[in-house]
Amino acid sequence: MEPRIWQQIAVRRCAEVKGMLPKGMLMSSPPPSSILDVSDIPRKFLDISDILLTEKLTISELLGRISAGSLTATQVINAFFHRACIAHQLTNCLTEVFFDRALERAAELDRHLKATGQVLGPLHGLPISLKDQIDVQGTEQNMCYVGLVGTKARDNAVIVDILLRQGAILYCKTNMAQGIMGAEGYNNVYGRTLNPLNRSLTCGGSSGGEGALIGMRGALMGVGSDIGGSIRLPAAFQGLYALKPSYGRIPYANTSSSFEGQETIRSVLGPITASVDGLKVFTKAVLETAPWDCDPWTPRMPWSEERYNLIDHGGLKGPLCFAILWDDKIVKPSPPYWRALKELKSALLHAGHFVTDWEPFKMEEAAASWMDILNADGGKDLKQHLALSGEPRLNDVLDRSVTERSVSEYWRLCHRRTTLMKESLDHWMSTATTTPTQRPVDAIVAPVAGCVPMRHDEPLLGNYTTFCNLMDYTTALMPVTKVLPHIDTRPPSHEFYSSADQDNYTRYDPELYRDGGVGIQIIGKRYEEEAVIRMTEIADQALKVHLAAS
Amino acid sequence: MEPRIWQQIAVRRCAEVKGMLPKGMLMSSPPPSSILDVSDIPRKFLDISDILLTEKLTISELLGRISAGSLTATQVINAFFHRACIAHQLTNCLTEVFFDRALERAAELDRHLKATGQVLGPLHGLPISLKDQIDVQGTEQNMCYVGLVGTKARDNAVIVDILLRQGAILYCKTNMAQGIMGAEGYNNVYGRTLNPLNRSLTCGGSSGGEGALIGMRGALMGVGSDIGGSIRLPAAFQGLYALKPSYGRIPYANTSSSFEGQETIRSVLGPITASVDGLKVFTKAVLETAPWDCDPWTPRMPWSEERYNLIDHGGLKGPLCFAILWDDKIVKPSPPYWRALKELKSALLHAGHFVTDWEPFKMEEAAASWMDILNADGGKDLKQHLALSGEPRLNDVLDRSVTERSVSEYWRLCHRRTTLMKESLDHWMSTATTTPTQRPVDAIVAPVAGCVPMRHDEPLLGNYTTFCNLMDYTTALMPVTKVLPHIDTRPPSHEFYSSADQDNYTRYDPELYRDGGVGIQIIGKRYEEEAVIRMTEIADQALKVHLAAS
Repeated sequence: MEPRIWQQIAVRRCAEVKGMLPKGMLMSSPPPSSILDVSDIPRKFLDISDILLTEKLTISELLGRISAGSLTATQVINAFFHRACIAHQLTNCLTEVFFDRALERAAELDRHLKATGQVLGPLHGLPISLKDQIDVQGTEQNMCYVGLVGTKARDNAVIVDILLRQGAILYCKTNMAQGIMGAEGYNNVYGRTLNPLNRSLTCGGSSGGEGALIGMRGALMGVGSDIGGSIRLPAAFQGLYALKPSYGRIPYANTSSSFEGQETIRSVLGPITASVDGLKVFTKAVLETAPWDCDPWTPRMPWSEERYNLIDHGGLKGPLCFAILWDDKIVKPSPPYWRALKELKSALLHAGHFVTDWEPFKMEEAAASWMDILNADGGKDLKQHLALSGEPRLNDVLDRSVTERSVSEYWRLCHRRTTLMKESLDHWMSTATTTPTQRPVDAIVAPVAGCVPMRHDEPLLGNYTTFCNLMDYTTALMPVTKVLPHIDTRPPSHEFYSSADQDNYTRYDPELYRDGGVGIQIIGKRYEEEAVIRMTEIADQALKVHLAAS
Repeated sequence: MEPRIWQQIAVRRCAEVKGMLPKGMLMSSPPPSSILDVSDIPRKFLDISDILLTEKLTISELLGRISAGSLTATQVINAFFHRACIAHQLTNCLTEVFFDRALERAAELDRHLKATGQVLGPLHGLPISLKDQIDVQGTEQNMCYVGLVGTKARDNAVIVDILLRQGAILYCKTNMAQGIMGAEGYNNVYGRTLNPLNRSLTCGGSSGGEGALIGMRGALMGVGSDIGGSIRLPAAFQGLYALKPSYGRIPYANTSSSFEGQETIRSVLGPITASVDGLKVFTKAVLETAPWDCDPWTPRMPWSEERYNLIDHGGLKGPLCFAILWDDKIVKPSPPYWRALKELKSALLHAGHFVTDWEPFKMEEAAASWMDILNADGGKDLKQHLALSGEPRLNDVLDRSVTERSVSEYWRLCHRRTTLMKESLDHWMSTATTTPTQRPVDAIVAPVAGCVPMRHDEPLLGNYTTFCNLMDYTTALMPVTKVLPHIDTRPPSHEFYSSADQDNYTRYDPELYRDGGVGIQIIGKRYEEEAVIRMTEIADQALKVHLAAS
C-alpha cells in the first residue's frame, strides 16, 4: 500500500528536523531498541567537561559559573545542544531546532558580559527548551498537525520575549501529544517520543518531548503547558521537577493552543527542570519583568519574597502541616507511589513537620466537570485540524464521541464548576480545625497518577492531576524514586473501586515498568506559587537528608 | 380588564415592602410628581442632628465619630433608616428591609465598643445598602423576577459575611433592572426607581436603587454590581462616587446573578459612595479579610499601600499623565460632558498634572464583542425566568432576538475578545512613547455615557462603559457637575457618526434633563484598584480646588 500524502508530509518534516542536526553529532550506530535505559549514552559522545557541565550542576550553579566568567554562554549552549542532538536520536524528542540563532545569541551574551561585567538578566546564558506549541518568530509552528506543516510563527509568544529579555538562550522546541490533550508525546507529524529511563515506556504528555529532553539533560530547564497534567506527568515520568502555576501567573499570550477561546479551565505555562532550584529561578525571572504589561490575563502579582518565606504558612521556623492523598478511592495508586509517599512522610516527620491524611473531596465530580468542559465542543477543534490533512486521530484523554453543547448548557457546566471550586476551598479551609498548626493544611501531597509510566499505547489510569487544574491550585512536582522491581512487587489484591482500578492492579508488573519515574505533587491553593516552590524545596531537602541517613 | 396574576403578586410584594416601614415614617402627603428634585425633602422630616449626620459628614468622618464615641451605631442607623424610608416613598428605591436585625446589630456594636474600647472592624457602625441580587440569609431573594417572589436566601453572600465581620450594619436591599441588564432600576416586581435629582429622569442601572438611595443620603455607601456599567451609570446619574474593580478583586461568591456560569465577562461587585474616601474605606476593609480564603475567584492580592501611593505611576510627588477620551466617534457626548471634561482638564493641569487626548481604540469592535458574549445564550436565561410567571420583558441593553450559539462559536467569540484585550493593552503601553512622563498614560478619563441621564424609557445612547468590562479595566466614577440648562445649551449640529449619534443630538434638550448628574470615569489597567482610587481622589481634590478658585 502506498503511503498516503499525509504520511509523506510527516516523513519529510521529520527528515527536515534530523537534517538540522550537525553531521558531526549524528550517531553512526545508534543502540538497538532493546537497550531501554539510554540516559547515560550521551557520556560516550561528550568530553568530560561537557558531561560535568550538563550533568553535575544545578541550574543556579550553572548560572553562577556563567556570571562569574568560568563558563561562557557559548560553551554552555554547545554542550547542551550536543546533548540534545544525541537525546533526539535516542528518544525522538525534538520538533524544531534553531541552533544558529542560539550561537549568535550566546556570542552576544558573552560579549555583553565581557564589555559590561554584568549579566543581561537572571537567566544569562541558560539554554531553555520550549514545548512545540510556543511561538518563536519565523520557526515552524505546526502544532504537531500534519495539515499545518510548513506554517511559520509570525510573532514570539510573550514568554519567549521575556525569557530572551532575561538572558536565556532558546535553541529547540519539543514534541507533544496530538491536540495537546494526550498523556504521551505522540502525534502523526513527529511520531512518538520515548522515555529515556526505559524506552519501552511513555515519556508522558502532553509536554512529553520536554520530559525526554530534560530527562536526557539536553536541557536543564524547559517550558511546558498544563491543562490537566501535561507538565506534571512528563516531569514525573522522567524524574524531574516542575511547576504548574495558577491561571496566567506565567504569561500565555501569543502562545498557540488547542481550542483557543476555551478560557474556563485555562492551559498554563510552567517550567520543567532538572534541579529543584530551577522552579524559583524561572518564576522569579519571569515575574520580575512585570508580565501583566504584556499579557492581559496575567494578574498584577510580582514575585513575593515574603510569600516564598512562607508568611502565610507560619514562617520559616514553624513546622508545616502536609496532608497526604494516599488513595482517591477511584484508582488505588500502584505500589511505587505508596513507597514514595511513605518515604516522603518519614522524611517530612523527621524534618519536624506534621503529616496528616488528606480527605479526598468530590474527586469523581471534579473529574467529570473537567472532562465535560474540555469536551464541550464535541471535539470539533481537534476534528477540524485532523481534517486538514486526513491524518487519523490518536488516543487522547477526551471522549470525542460526545455532541457539541449549546451555550446555555456550557454556562451550566461552568456554574457547576465554580460551585465545586467554592466547596473545595471551604473543605480545605475547614482543615484548620483539625491540624496541629491550627492553620489549614499547608499543602496536599499526592501521587501524579494511579499508574506508573505506562508502556506505549496503554491508557493513563488514575486521575490525580485534573482536579488541580479545575480548582486552579498551584501545583509542583518533585521526583521521589523510580520503579524498583525487587521492592515494588505486586501487592495482594484489594476490593476494586472501579474497572480502571482493576485494570491498574492487573496490568502492574514491576519488571515491565522498571526504572519509570515516580513523582509526587505538592499542591497549594490558588496563586500560591512562591509558597509551593518553597514547600517543594523543603520537601525535597527533607527527602535528600532522609535518604542519605537511611 | 382584570389585573393578571403576575401583577397581583407584584402589587402584594410592593405592599409588603411598604409595610416594613414604620408607620411613623410614612409621609401623610407625599409631594406631587410635578416636584422633580426631591433630594432635600428628607430635611423636612429629620431632626437637625440627623440631617447633619446624614448629609454633612464624609464616610471617614462618620466612622471617626462612631469610633470616638461621639455618635453611637444606634443613632447612626436610626438616622439613615429614617432617611431611607423617606427616600423610598419619593423614589421607590427599596426592595427589602430588615431594620430589626440592623437595630440589634447596632446595639451589639455599641456594647462591643463600650466594653472593649475597640471597634469591631474598620466599618464599625457604618450602614451599608445592598443591591437586590446580593444574598442575605433568610431575606427575600427574588432577583426582581415575579416568578421568584417569596424565595428566601439560604446563605449570606461572601461579601455580606465580610462586611458584617468588619463592623458594617446592613439594613436594606435596593431595586435593579430586570435581568440585571438594563440601564434603569426597573422591573415588573418593584416597578421603577426615580432619580431624586429629577424624578422625570432615570436613576440609571442596573444598580439603580443604590443610586437613588445614596443620592437621597439614605446611605453613604452601598454595594452594586457591574458587568457593563451597572455601578457607574447610577453613581454618575445621581452625582456619586463608585468603583468597578477588576474581576473578583471584591468577592462575588454566593451572590446570585443573571446567567450564572457566564464567566467570560464577569460581573463584579463594588462600592457606590457619597464621598470619595469611601472607595478606599470599602476596598481596604474587604481586602484586609483575605477574601481569597472565601472566594475561589478572588486573586491573592492584599490591599497595597505602595500601589495606593502610586509606586507604579511615578510616586506621589511626580505629575501624572491623564488622557481624555472626549469622543469615541460613535456617539458624541452631550454638552454637559464636554464642559465636565474641560473643567476637569483645567483642574488637573492647574494641579500640575499632564493631560493628553486618548486615542479611542477599536471601540466598535469592543462593543460588539461585549454584546455577542453576553448574548450568546440567545437570551434563554432571561426568557426562562420571565416564563416562570408570564411577566413581560422590559427594555434592556441586549438584543434578545439572536439565536443561541454553539460552544465552538462561543469559544471563537472568547478568543476574539482575548485578542482584543491583548491589542488594547499593547495600545495602552505604547503611549509611553508619547507622554511627557515617559510612562504609559496613567489613567483614561472618559464620560460615563454619550447621553445625560435619560427620561424614563429612553434608551441609553453612547456606550462608554462596556469596553472597561471587556478589558477588565479597574474603573472609578466621580461626579463633576450636573446638567445646567443655562450653560449646557444645544450646540450646532455636527456630521453624525451614527443614528445613535443623531438621536443623542436630536433629543438633547437641557431643560428636560435639568439637574441630571454628570459623571466621569477614571480608568486604570487590570487590578489597579489602589492606584485608580488614589488617582480619583487626586482628580476630585483638584476639581474642588479649581471650582473653589473660579
